[in-house]
Amino acid sequence: MKIVIVPHPKYPKSEVVERKGIGHPDSICDGVAEAVSRALSRAYIKETGHIQHHNVDKVTLAAGRSRTSWGGGEILRPIRIFIVGRANYSVPVETIAIKAARDYLHEILPLARDEHFVIDPRVGEGASELISTVENVVANDTSVGVGFAPFTEAERITKEIADFLNSREFMREWPEVGPDIKVMTHRDGELLDITIAAAFVDRFLGSIEEYRRSKEAIEERIREKFELRDAVVKINALDNYEKGMVYLTVIGTSAEQGDDGSVGRGTRVNGLITPTRPMSLEAAAGKNPVSHVGKLYNVLAQQIAERIYAETGKPAEVMIQSRIGYPITDPPLVLVRTDASDIENIVKEEIEKLPEITMKIVEGKIRVF
Amino acid sequence: MKIVIVPHPKYPKSEVVERKGIGHPDSICDGVAEAVSRALSRAYIKETGHIQHHNVDKVTLAAGRSRTSWGGGEILRPIRIFIVGRANYSVPVETIAIKAARDYLHEILPLARDEHFVIDPRVGEGASELISTVENVVANDTSVGVGFAPFTEAERITKEIADFLNSREFMREWPEVGPDIKVMTHRDGELLDITIAAAFVDRFLGSIEEYRRSKEAIEERIREKFELRDAVVKINALDNYEKGMVYLTVIGTSAEQGDDGSVGRGTRVNGLITPTRPMSLEAAAGKNPVSHVGKLYNVLAQQIAERIYAETGKPAEVMIQSRIGYPITDPPLVLVRTDASDIENIVKEEIEKLPEITMKIVEGKIRVF
Amino acid sequence: MKIVIVPHPKYPKSEVVERKGIGHPDSICDGVAEAVSRALSRAYIKETGHIQHHNVDKVTLAAGRSRTSWGGGEILRPIRIFIVGRANYSVPVETIAIKAARDYLHEILPLARDEHFVIDPRVGEGASELISTVENVVANDTSVGVGFAPFTEAERITKEIADFLNSREFMREWPEVGPDIKVMTHRDGELLDITIAAAFVDRFLGSIEEYRRSKEAIEERIREKFELRDAVVKINALDNYEKGMVYLTVIGTSAEQGDDGSVGRGTRVNGLITPTRPMSLEAAAGKNPVSHVGKLYNVLAQQIAERIYAETGKPAEVMIQSRIGYPITDPPLVLVRTDASDIENIVKEEIEKLPEITMKIVEGKIRVF
Amino acid sequence: MKIVIVPHPKYPKSEVVERKGIGHPDSICDGVAEAVSRALSRAYIKETGHIQHHNVDKVTLAAGRSRTSWGGGEILRPIRIFIVGRANYSVPVETIAIKAARDYLHEILPLARDEHFVIDPRVGEGASELISTVENVVANDTSVGVGFAPFTEAERITKEIADFLNSREFMREWPEVGPDIKVMTHRDGELLDITIAAAFVDRFLGSIEEYRRSKEAIEERIREKFELRDAVVKINALDNYEKGMVYLTVIGTSAEQGDDGSVGRGTRVNGLITPTRPMSLEAAAGKNPVSHVGKLYNVLAQQIAERIYAETGKPAEVMIQSRIGYPITDPPLVLVRTDASDIENIVKEEIEKLPEITMKIVEGKIRVF
Repeated sequence: MKIVIVPHPKYPKSEVVERKGIGHPDSICDGVAEAVSRALSRAYIKETGHIQHHNVDKVTLAAGRSRTSWGGGEILRPIRIFIVGRANYSVPVETIAIKAARDYLHEILPLARDEHFVIDPRVGEGASELISTVENVVANDTSVGVGFAPFTEAERITKEIADFLNSREFMREWPEVGPDIKVMTHRDGELLDITIAAAFVDRFLGSIEEYRRSKEAIEERIREKFELRDAVVKINALDNYEKGMVYLTVIGTSAEQGDDGSVGRGTRVNGLITPTRPMSLEAAAGKNPVSHVGKLYNVLAQQIAERIYAETGKPAEVMIQSRIGYPITDPPLVLVRTDASDIENIVKEEIEKLPEITMKIVEGKIRVF
Repeated sequence: MKIVIVPHPKYPKSEVVERKGIGHPDSICDGVAEAVSRALSRAYIKETGHIQHHNVDKVTLAAGRSRTSWGGGEILRPIRIFIVGRANYSVPVETIAIKAARDYLHEILPLARDEHFVIDPRVGEGASELISTVENVVANDTSVGVGFAPFTEAERITKEIADFLNSREFMREWPEVGPDIKVMTHRDGELLDITIAAAFVDRFLGSIEEYRRSKEAIEERIREKFELRDAVVKINALDNYEKGMVYLTVIGTSAEQGDDGSVGRGTRVNGLITPTRPMSLEAAAGKNPVSHVGKLYNVLAQQIAERIYAETGKPAEVMIQSRIGYPITDPPLVLVRTDASDIENIVKEEIEKLPEITMKIVEGKIRVF
Repeated sequence: MKIVIVPHPKYPKSEVVERKGIGHPDSICDGVAEAVSRALSRAYIKETGHIQHHNVDKVTLAAGRSRTSWGGGEILRPIRIFIVGRANYSVPVETIAIKAARDYLHEILPLARDEHFVIDPRVGEGASELISTVENVVANDTSVGVGFAPFTEAERITKEIADFLNSREFMREWPEVGPDIKVMTHRDGELLDITIAAAFVDRFLGSIEEYRRSKEAIEERIREKFELRDAVVKINALDNYEKGMVYLTVIGTSAEQGDDGSVGRGTRVNGLITPTRPMSLEAAAGKNPVSHVGKLYNVLAQQIAERIYAETGKPAEVMIQSRIGYPITDPPLVLVRTDASDIENIVKEEIEKLPEITMKIVEGKIRVF
Repeated sequence: MKIVIVPHPKYPKSEVVERKGIGHPDSICDGVAEAVSRALSRAYIKETGHIQHHNVDKVTLAAGRSRTSWGGGEILRPIRIFIVGRANYSVPVETIAIKAARDYLHEILPLARDEHFVIDPRVGEGASELISTVENVVANDTSVGVGFAPFTEAERITKEIADFLNSREFMREWPEVGPDIKVMTHRDGELLDITIAAAFVDRFLGSIEEYRRSKEAIEERIREKFELRDAVVKINALDNYEKGMVYLTVIGTSAEQGDDGSVGRGTRVNGLITPTRPMSLEAAAGKNPVSHVGKLYNVLAQQIAERIYAETGKPAEVMIQSRIGYPITDPPLVLVRTDASDIENIVKEEIEKLPEITMKIVEGKIRVF
């Protein structure tokens, strides 16, 4: 393992940050893929003593069809969720996948009923070559994991607003906002411009007037709570009240009509999409947490960056390269952009903790989207 | 529109570059999505005079099942390709989609036969709200397009090797190499380490010995052609001749067994995956080329960067921000990292050419993966 | 309406009778189709005041994959149930269909869990032409409904044995027998030869020896209960204990592995398959109970035959012809084979009761398979 | 084997006869299932020397969506054809199935293009128990095959009209009539009433007036050709010219919109549906022609009846019973209803020819629907 340390780059004057909430079609796919991977991991451990090869990171959602109506509409055709991947069949893979997906969907979409989904697994037997790589715990791909800390102000606010809108507290107070939200922040110098897309739920609203009042009250609430007096905060920017065009849904997600989704299109392992920062393309959700460096190294890089910042007070950007066939605990290169020094030990210690990361992912203590 | 120019960052000492070839399962999905979008665009123009809203960027591939055999094996179960998306039905959307997908698959996988695929379209009617945004040609999303020029040496070589392996010339000389290839390059200082994954085709090989000879000859050929005397060049690093484990296929793609694919997991619009460079997460393939800034602004940013480099000799990294509902010809921010000066006019002139970009994409003159 | 009465034919010396139980893959399809039709009918009545056109009689089941094991095995891949048909979308058709199918499956397969099924509806909007025929309640097809009474001895015993094996009483006493059973009776003169196929359930059996003992005890029990001292009664005739080939399942139906199913392949509306008796080809299950003569006239013919027999003591075979576009209460021809006389009024009165039949079908009081 | 001969029953005074043409959705399913079975049989013979177990008799068609237009409309969404069944995988089952289905569809629907279909095979590996029964060529089920000869006048005319409408000669002269036709004949005493449903093709018709003229001319042509001066002959009885409701299609089959289909819902092996005659419920199409008595015994019974009639001039109805596990050349009972005598040898000789029947089915010389 080679550790290279270079100075931290300057922060840009302008940035764009985005977070897709839990009920966004892309996040739904990420969440389903991850729920299936975790359920399979637990079953493998129980049945065989250790996690077997699997890769269920090709989850795609085809939107349903709904008919909204003030006071409550209907889901006419179900949302289809294709779970495509490979797994070792020492456990009943597809029934585990269906159950994990269904339980997860009910957890995040409390208004949805079983009959609003077709969960359609197509999980093949994994190729034997790939399976053998898991047993020896060598990297199963050549890729790069990326992490950074701390968040900029825009990043922090974006994440906090999104998490607030998805919180139990908020959903109790504003049941008319569904779990499908998206927060996009533009910062230009000091100026923050925050656009929120939020799927409103028809059963809790009697008219377009109620919708409007609710929307404006929420905008006000966010401005207050996050102390955004000088920022622009706008929900559902495309609404057109004259034409009756508003963002209304039956169960609180655009997946019920019109919006499809796919794993890996949403937020990265740190919870954000940050095109003006280093980012990994890897879709972490659904990959096995033992040998898939596309998953593990992103989590690891994030943890190293956070620890460097915590211990030294200096920002850090971390990139970890993998090589297919190399032991995952010995990455060929770790590149750290930081002004801190003497951080080699942090890197090494965190890499030692990879098995812990695996288990924390399985237990749901580390989230990857 | 605001144009901000900052100095170009230093190139890193170490980099990772990857290119997935035309027959890789992820690239197959990108290519199918793009072929469908182009076919729809042409049909809309013919039928209604201009391109209508569509978004068919959720193509997923579930691998088939094959039985390889020296001298020629069989495809037991077909590769399934789900084409998920939205489109305006003023033209026969799904039959256009199937035809475009099939024609494309035959073009890139000459050994595949119709019966090796199930092409399964699920393209809904687009939500009316989104459709209206196309008519006025305003940005349909808030995102960031990214481009840079010139390529580093590692980037250039990675792209050229991949394109060489996918070239007619190469495939005529080495028919035993299928279109599913992947080239990954690590540069560490001056040292290049190039790993290639290539799906060999069983019908052109009589034995594992022939496979080995062919593979070694190709490694040698690449070293020569690209003058890589000091680089490591390795094909199919996981091969194990003793165990008979080699990378063998029937029609030249891992999609026939074991490897699934999805749009947006592969190369960016410049043809590369470059985690150590600014990158967009957007899946460009399959998006409509009129209002989808996730597609257009990536192409545009790349063209601006290339023109800056061509006219000034200075490297450039370009990021273009979009805002949902804003005219696409007036992006809120263009950030250019370059040491060139007086490049505002280049930016403006290139933005003026957006309608040309649209038509070039439709005509297949601009490739997005 | 023309009523033609001819003498009853002689009973054949030899006959074949069959009944597929509730858990047989073909019966599962019939039951799902019928459950969906009933649920849609109730929803239409509630929402619009009367039953709208629908036809969901193309239900097909693709078997899953299971791994049986003495003491309890696993379902590796789910059973797929395609619900294909047409319906009026004044109610949320597909979500009603999924819910009705799922509830029904749990009712008849108590060992199955949600994740053992993929319920996949593809119910199109009905063609407007056909819908209009429902509103006027004219026959929507040209076909023939058939019924007869009373049952022969072989018919009666076949039905009673099958119903006994599917009864709660039996399933409590012999939990190791699943709901997928089939009873076939050959009568040759006086001699009855009864073959039973029964899916045994692995979790209730510790070994092949237990299986054998259970099977023999059940054969004995049937012989006793139905007083079949001189008949041959044989369960799972293809079992081969030496080779370990027995009919074992995880959830009690061959649909879990190896046996597909389809609507209309199973029993007729009288509960039997009787090739040596007049029979209708019509698949009654899933058709709307208002205008689908292929459903209504079979039930009606059976009711007329039963009433003739009840009131006159004479056997009767009844065939009712329909004509597309004719009022369903005025069939062009009713042919009765009976030695009874003066039965025209019975025919006419029963035809008057068609609206009652519709409602009894909706309420589940008349079963059609 | 026991052969029982009883007198032939009297012919009824009234009868109903139906034939679904080659392009009817149910017949499409029968034809696809049979094409797949034949293609598999040929592949098994070539690869392994003899036909292996297979059963692909659960083909279901979910209608597409079309937009008809005088002068030529469009197929908006494809027709989906699910090929569900079991087969031995010593040959590439699903790719053979897709190819056979596609070739067959093009043969019978010359206006359809590849992109008008999604051919979706789900053919599992056959259960080992069932496979072993094929190897020994014992009956794989307990069922009854039925045949009769000669046809009544109504039966003959029904079949001939349908075959005329599906003939090349007719389709050349009247290209505006598609292959999806259905002929239903009611005979009441001497009176014939013939109703024809025929899918007209929009591209060959410029207006509803042309449709009307064509339809009336065809009615006249049929009356002439089949000398039906006193019969009622009516095409598309539900047409309503005022409302513009006529039976119009884009490619000549109702499967393109609104009508689903399934194997075994259409004509029997003699080409007719005859509810007033003995009939088998068995779906012959798609079953393997070696051990599936539900297929073989229906063909055999028909051949015995035809030969009895040919050699003796006496009508015959033949029923052949099978028993699971019995050699197929030794059925437990053959029941012949005829007034001919000394026909035991005919029965025995025809049973000897079962292997010939198998090969004729594979070669397409015997049609089963």
